[in-house]
Amino acid sequence: MADSQEKEFRVGMIGYGFMGRAHSQAWRNVNAAFRTPRIHMESIVGRDATAVARVASELGWNKSHTDWREVVADPAIDIIDICTPGDSHADIAIAALEAGKHVIVEKPLANSMDESRAMVAAAAAAQSRGIMSAVNFNYRRVPALMLAKQLIADGRVGDVLHIRGAYLQDWLSDPSLPMSWRLQKERAGTGVLGDLGAHVVDLMRHLTGKSVDGVTGHLRTFTHQRPDGTGKLGTVTVDDAALATLALSGGAVANLDVTRNAPGKKNELSLSIYGTRGSISFNLENLNELWLFDREDPSGEQGYRRILVTESQHPYLAAWWPDGHIIGWEHTFTHQFYEFLMSIESGTPASPSFSDGHDVQAVLEAIASSAANGHKLTTPEN
Amino acid sequence: MADSQEKEFRVGMIGYGFMGRAHSQAWRNVNAAFRTPRIHMESIVGRDATAVARVASELGWNKSHTDWREVVADPAIDIIDICTPGDSHADIAIAALEAGKHVIVEKPLANSMDESRAMVAAAAAAQSRGIMSAVNFNYRRVPALMLAKQLIADGRVGDVLHIRGAYLQDWLSDPSLPMSWRLQKERAGTGVLGDLGAHVVDLMRHLTGKSVDGVTGHLRTFTHQRPDGTGKLGTVTVDDAALATLALSGGAVANLDVTRNAPGKKNELSLSIYGTRGSISFNLENLNELWLFDREDPSGEQGYRRILVTESQHPYLAAWWPDGHIIGWEHTFTHQFYEFLMSIESGTPASPSFSDGHDVQAVLEAIASSAANGHKLTTPEN
Amino acid sequence: MADSQEKEFRVGMIGYGFMGRAHSQAWRNVNAAFRTPRIHMESIVGRDATAVARVASELGWNKSHTDWREVVADPAIDIIDICTPGDSHADIAIAALEAGKHVIVEKPLANSMDESRAMVAAAAAAQSRGIMSAVNFNYRRVPALMLAKQLIADGRVGDVLHIRGAYLQDWLSDPSLPMSWRLQKERAGTGVLGDLGAHVVDLMRHLTGKSVDGVTGHLRTFTHQRPDGTGKLGTVTVDDAALATLALSGGAVANLDVTRNAPGKKNELSLSIYGTRGSISFNLENLNELWLFDREDPSGEQGYRRILVTESQHPYLAAWWPDGHIIGWEHTFTHQFYEFLMSIESGTPASPSFSDGHDVQAVLEAIASSAANGHKLTTPEN
Amino acid sequence: MADSQEKEFRVGMIGYGFMGRAHSQAWRNVNAAFRTPRIHMESIVGRDATAVARVASELGWNKSHTDWREVVADPAIDIIDICTPGDSHADIAIAALEAGKHVIVEKPLANSMDESRAMVAAAAAAQSRGIMSAVNFNYRRVPALMLAKQLIADGRVGDVLHIRGAYLQDWLSDPSLPMSWRLQKERAGTGVLGDLGAHVVDLMRHLTGKSVDGVTGHLRTFTHQRPDGTGKLGTVTVDDAALATLALSGGAVANLDVTRNAPGKKNELSLSIYGTRGSISFNLENLNELWLFDREDPSGEQGYRRILVTESQHPYLAAWWPDGHIIGWEHTFTHQFYEFLMSIESGTPASPSFSDGHDVQAVLEAIASSAANGHKLTTPEN
Repeated sequence: MADSQEKEFRVGMIGYGFMGRAHSQAWRNVNAAFRTPRIHMESIVGRDATAVARVASELGWNKSHTDWREVVADPAIDIIDICTPGDSHADIAIAALEAGKHVIVEKPLANSMDESRAMVAAAAAAQSRGIMSAVNFNYRRVPALMLAKQLIADGRVGDVLHIRGAYLQDWLSDPSLPMSWRLQKERAGTGVLGDLGAHVVDLMRHLTGKSVDGVTGHLRTFTHQRPDGTGKLGTVTVDDAALATLALSGGAVANLDVTRNAPGKKNELSLSIYGTRGSISFNLENLNELWLFDREDPSGEQGYRRILVTESQHPYLAAWWPDGHIIGWEHTFTHQFYEFLMSIESGTPASPSFSDGHDVQAVLEAIASSAANGHKLTTPEN
Repeated sequence: MADSQEKEFRVGMIGYGFMGRAHSQAWRNVNAAFRTPRIHMESIVGRDATAVARVASELGWNKSHTDWREVVADPAIDIIDICTPGDSHADIAIAALEAGKHVIVEKPLANSMDESRAMVAAAAAAQSRGIMSAVNFNYRRVPALMLAKQLIADGRVGDVLHIRGAYLQDWLSDPSLPMSWRLQKERAGTGVLGDLGAHVVDLMRHLTGKSVDGVTGHLRTFTHQRPDGTGKLGTVTVDDAALATLALSGGAVANLDVTRNAPGKKNELSLSIYGTRGSISFNLENLNELWLFDREDPSGEQGYRRILVTESQHPYLAAWWPDGHIIGWEHTFTHQFYEFLMSIESGTPASPSFSDGHDVQAVLEAIASSAANGHKLTTPEN
Repeated sequence: MADSQEKEFRVGMIGYGFMGRAHSQAWRNVNAAFRTPRIHMESIVGRDATAVARVASELGWNKSHTDWREVVADPAIDIIDICTPGDSHADIAIAALEAGKHVIVEKPLANSMDESRAMVAAAAAAQSRGIMSAVNFNYRRVPALMLAKQLIADGRVGDVLHIRGAYLQDWLSDPSLPMSWRLQKERAGTGVLGDLGAHVVDLMRHLTGKSVDGVTGHLRTFTHQRPDGTGKLGTVTVDDAALATLALSGGAVANLDVTRNAPGKKNELSLSIYGTRGSISFNLENLNELWLFDREDPSGEQGYRRILVTESQHPYLAAWWPDGHIIGWEHTFTHQFYEFLMSIESGTPASPSFSDGHDVQAVLEAIASSAANGHKLTTPEN
Repeated sequence: MADSQEKEFRVGMIGYGFMGRAHSQAWRNVNAAFRTPRIHMESIVGRDATAVARVASELGWNKSHTDWREVVADPAIDIIDICTPGDSHADIAIAALEAGKHVIVEKPLANSMDESRAMVAAAAAAQSRGIMSAVNFNYRRVPALMLAKQLIADGRVGDVLHIRGAYLQDWLSDPSLPMSWRLQKERAGTGVLGDLGAHVVDLMRHLTGKSVDGVTGHLRTFTHQRPDGTGKLGTVTVDDAALATLALSGGAVANLDVTRNAPGKKNELSLSIYGTRGSISFNLENLNELWLFDREDPSGEQGYRRILVTESQHPYLAAWWPDGHIIGWEHTFTHQFYEFLMSIESGTPASPSFSDGHDVQAVLEAIASSAANGHKLTTPEN
């Protein structure tokens, strides 16, 4: 580990909400788990000086700031990590790339296609100067899904025919839950579609290598008004549920179903991928498990196999604990940051790229567009 | 039990394939489990005289015939049970009702809306003469789904917002599997949509009391040719997979996904119903279980509850074994026949009615129509 | 089927409680599922003439009697099926064997070693005259456990080292539950040990081929008095829980844990068998499933495999429904009776034999004896 | 957080194997998750100077040493954390306590009762001077088990009658796996009994408040020789499997079964606790889940409830991520260290105490003693 740790990287993180805590956890631990350049948690940025100073102390950042431009301009900073709501991603990322910083940005890449298109252009320009960029579709780095990708690539499910993808949460089931920026179109862009659906669409593309060629979409808002914290009601301007059918390249089909109104489902990102030879199945609430079915297992002995993805031969797991000692959700970030650091080290483009983020955005916009134009539902005729 | 068993009913069954075996099992056992009029398994009908005679002996039918018209005309017969492919349902059922026989018909009710409309009319006319009719959506009679309906009616999930329904099998995954009447449009009407989707649509309507007001549909055939048993290839003319989004009454949405190409899924009819208060979940591969989540359980103790629906206070279970001693798929028929016999006894209309069958048919046709007209998929724009 | 069905067998069943209903269900259906001699459900015996007559009519028996001796003496009867409490098994079985009837008896074989020894002798004598006998350890005939036995015999788990066996129910958790013959030593012999433990011990021996060479046992009664139905309290004279450690032949060990006081466990007979190569796991509440782990699966892809034992290549399943359509607990009896009929047909000794029943009895008595002598627990010393 | 973080603690850790990595992870993160005195990872001790220096750099320790006595004598150090094999625990812990350091020691507390008795005495003497000590039964700090303890204390399972505890791993299934200190009696004390059984015994006592009053034990070694790394075979001098029955205070019974030879079980510490009202069940391979059954749930709706213990109202979870975002095994240490720091802060004795460690040791020795004396198995007599 000595060699690579001679290099050092100073990180500046913009934003410090839930995602900021998760990112900090990963920056704090990536050096202990993996052989990477040494990380210094240098600067954290938030709008409230007192609050951000406190958080810096808690989470282990050296300095706090209230203006992201200061940190982007700081010559000591090597990496900018963007955890703010989606409406500010483009501005910060483009400025940082132009300032020669490597950039990793939370998903979704941006709130509009115009913004994401500009970001892709900025990333391409930066890359030609050796500056790397990535969008944080962290679920690509779940070990079980790394294994899934490898199994699919190895032909273990044959030709992929049919995908079922869902992301189900329940925190909006409670109608007394107050407004937040996540429920406002101008901050969040969309509701579940962008927040949860983006992960599922990215994984469908990433795991199978297929593109999305056509969609039908259906969005629904169940709760239109919520307390805004001042005793008044705020208006929810995003979708509570999004359902879509996707035509994938090569003749495959996919089903997408995302909601925050599924009581009892706390964080169920579930994916089932059916091919001509076998299938795999995954659920984020048990993220250390992958289920595999293989039609070439001996007759009479076939069945879904629960692979507890915690062995040292599994992706990333040599960095962690003995077999069967599960890891938590937080390490999807640790792994993603490790990959990003390796990309910077090696000069090879990072994954998932801004381009990946843009392509996912295009699918989400097509779904929203189909839903908006298309209350052309067919009515059953008696 | 003595009283009601003084009455007797003689049954004639048309058709003797897989479904004929299942229906025979139910007729053979319904008297031992429930207090019903005494059943006599009188006549079974098939086209091959030798084969049907052998099956009659195996399954316990007194006589075998090759012409259904003989049995329909037999004055000794009280009940006609129709297990043939869908293209003959209308003819047999209408003739039988006109001959004054009570009729129970396998699903789907018919292969076309015109046929099912005529059957509904015949059933209405017959009912005015005290003659009962039913379509065999037998999954309504899974004890766990009877319990689900009751819980929903009691408000235990609140207002239903979102339903996820799927029916996944894998027997078409093998491309060497030969043609059968189930893969021919002229016999089967549709593929998975009618065979599997019909059950899911019926259950969505039945369990929640909601109507389907609009749909988008997407059908797909993955394997277009299969060996026909004579060394040649036959052409598959029905769908292998059907995906749809349903707008339900009261603002709810539903997702439908059915396929026979999901390796590892042998018979997974899964339903999840999410409401404002709670949710329920069911999977036919474990048909003795129902999962319930209740947001009004004490905070910190909430979770999906696995109800093993095998206790004497559960629907139909007093007829069977002690707690935890599971029943098999076959008793969905036993229970459905019991209900049908009770309907005849009491003179109250049977459920599911031909009308229910027709309404399901209308939804399936709307899905097929949306899929046919509607390759108006929205294309993601980069 | 024609040939073998030319033979016919007339059955007389002694006892008509819960077990009588289950046995009747199996006799009623065995001909439809399997090619066996034709069964006639001839005579049923109970002490209350009115009650037994009613049950005969419900369950499909031709005649009812109040004295088992009449039926044993009836020259028309070929098979005697004994479902009474254990204290009468020896008398009936020995008389029936001597009268030249084939005999199948519910487990446990008898309430004492003396009785079971006499039954083994009677069975041996009868067998020399072509008269067959069996004890109804019906769980040997769960298809998943038939598959388990075959996998173990094929070396799929290697040398068996360690077995965990439990049978957990909860119906005695309720202290207001009244007395029954199952809680009286003079009728039932023992409590959970004989009722539930017998199945587990039989399966351990049967599935692995190992003998039990030594035991330590621990019995416990939690609820000592229960209402006897006359307003008084009756005294429970049997064990509520039985725990034991077993030394098996070949150096293996086993753990046995049975109770009727495990709230939430309705009928969990669970078995896990660990060997040098792999392991299998089973739970009677999901009796259509077997779990298999194989250390020779590819590295990184190993995991417990859920085999849904419902395919036509699985034991007995060709008699039933398509893949994934589960069967119920009742068919363990159907399968056991099929095997018994085949044994009579072929003249090969039936399994499980009275000898198997006796050997299980010997293990249970050793456990009870260890528990009685042996409150020689070692006390932790501080 | 400001106030309490004004205090600071300097930690010295002795040992740096697998456990050292896990402890370091916890020391590195406890400040970010909880309001505790600020931790400085000051000194790490190992016998190989080069190796320990490298590990110090990787894991974030300021300095490395080869002699634990230096660190124990260092006045800057406040806390000594002992991760060495059990044979050195007593020496280090007693020296550290006498030097006025707070001490936390990995389990088992010691390899002999004499050692643990001396440690308890040293801890008592130290506590009177405000010096705290704890033994690291970290599984007490699994949030799901914290919840379990609280539910039991609240009477949600009623009076505890029966406990089933097991700890199953499979890493010794491979006979080519080489010798390690864990397989040598002189270093490890015992095999699975101390390594795995200690956790289960501690949890039985801790969760229910019951003492262990008597035991029977059975130990077994399956693989007696293993490669020692020099081309020769070393002799395994500890147990591969340990089975025991425990008589608990208040008339309850418990079953203990631990092994490292259960293929497919990677890290299954499973506990089921049955009481007069309900039961709870837990499995460490899914450590974020607790299953609860309550006989007072409405009739017909009872079932085991899967509580996903990831909500902010659950123990420790407010420190982590949103609902449904699972945490990993490593945070059992983070939580235990947090509790230890709070104990130091508040001056209240820490839990689990050295006394708890000693009491567990006494139970383990009784099991080993019963197994050694006691091949007095009862032999079944035919």
